[in-house]
Amino acid sequence: MTIEEPRSAAQRREDTLRRLEHDVDLWVATAESGTGAPALVPLSFRWDGETIMIATVASSPTARNLVAGGAARLALGATRDVIMIDCTVAETVPTAEIPADVGDAFAAKAGFDPRQDTDPYLYFSLRPHRVQAWREANELSGRTLMIKGRWR
Amino acid sequence: MTIEEPRSAAQRREDTLRRLEHDVDLWVATAESGTGAPALVPLSFRWDGETIMIATVASSPTARNLVAGGAARLALGATRDVIMIDCTVAETVPTAEIPADVGDAFAAKAGFDPRQDTDPYLYFSLRPHRVQAWREANELSGRTLMIKGRWR
Repeated sequence: MTIEEPRSAAQRREDTLRRLEHDVDLWVATAESGTGAPALVPLSFRWDGETIMIATVASSPTARNLVAGGAARLALGATRDVIMIDCTVAETVPTAEIPADVGDAFAAKAGFDPRQDTDPYLYFSLRPHRVQAWREANELSGRTLMIKGRWR
Repeated sequence: MTIEEPRSAAQRREDTLRRLEHDVDLWVATAESGTGAPALVPLSFRWDGETIMIATVASSPTARNLVAGGAARLALGATRDVIMIDCTVAETVPTAEIPADVGDAFAAKAGFDPRQDTDPYLYFSLRPHRVQAWREANELSGRTLMIKGRWR
């Protein structure tokens, strides 16, 4: 396999923003702080330019961990073209209280509408504080694109 | 997009074992039990029929979490064709103590050899106790293929 030359920081940021805009799913890792039990699930998301919105059943481990701890680590892409995003919960909104336009925009992007489900869902707006992007080992250097919530 | 008919349990198990044998990378989610900080990284692995071997720098959050807590949740595949594996650490071996044949088999499968790195690595053998596999929402029913370490 040919390994590409490492991308520039500007190119990585551009690639990252394109994927945040166009990808449908990401991996969401959270943790139960007491037991240290890790949770990991694939979920659909919507990026609004500042935060990543996901929605999951209120009784799920992921929802419980986000309500209790507020920290998530997200992964987009494949294992050899990754974007890793460390986030904190900026806002939590139950299905019944989500503004109609926000709920509509989420459903259009995610391809499912939590408001149509009989189980109660929670919407979480996740605010990135660190963003990293790399493909192969030669891109590990320079992989950090955002730190403390600011693009570098 | 056409949604396929749900696969049988036997087919899912066969697909899962094939991916464990042939896939190179997986996602590893762990947690720091005190703070509840989630860790998530892509790593190469080797399946020996009973356990999944990974190797990571001893000082990394993933290694520290595995040493302290012993629990991991793994994901193989894409977000619409997932295999989720809950594991516990069966064995932890530093680079200097790995048997030559085990180190060679890992390097051949993973495509990198931790013994060649200047940083000290730890090898972890992870034993699955729950395995789930699904593609789309119509496969959520019947997704649990292994429970308490036994294939169903």
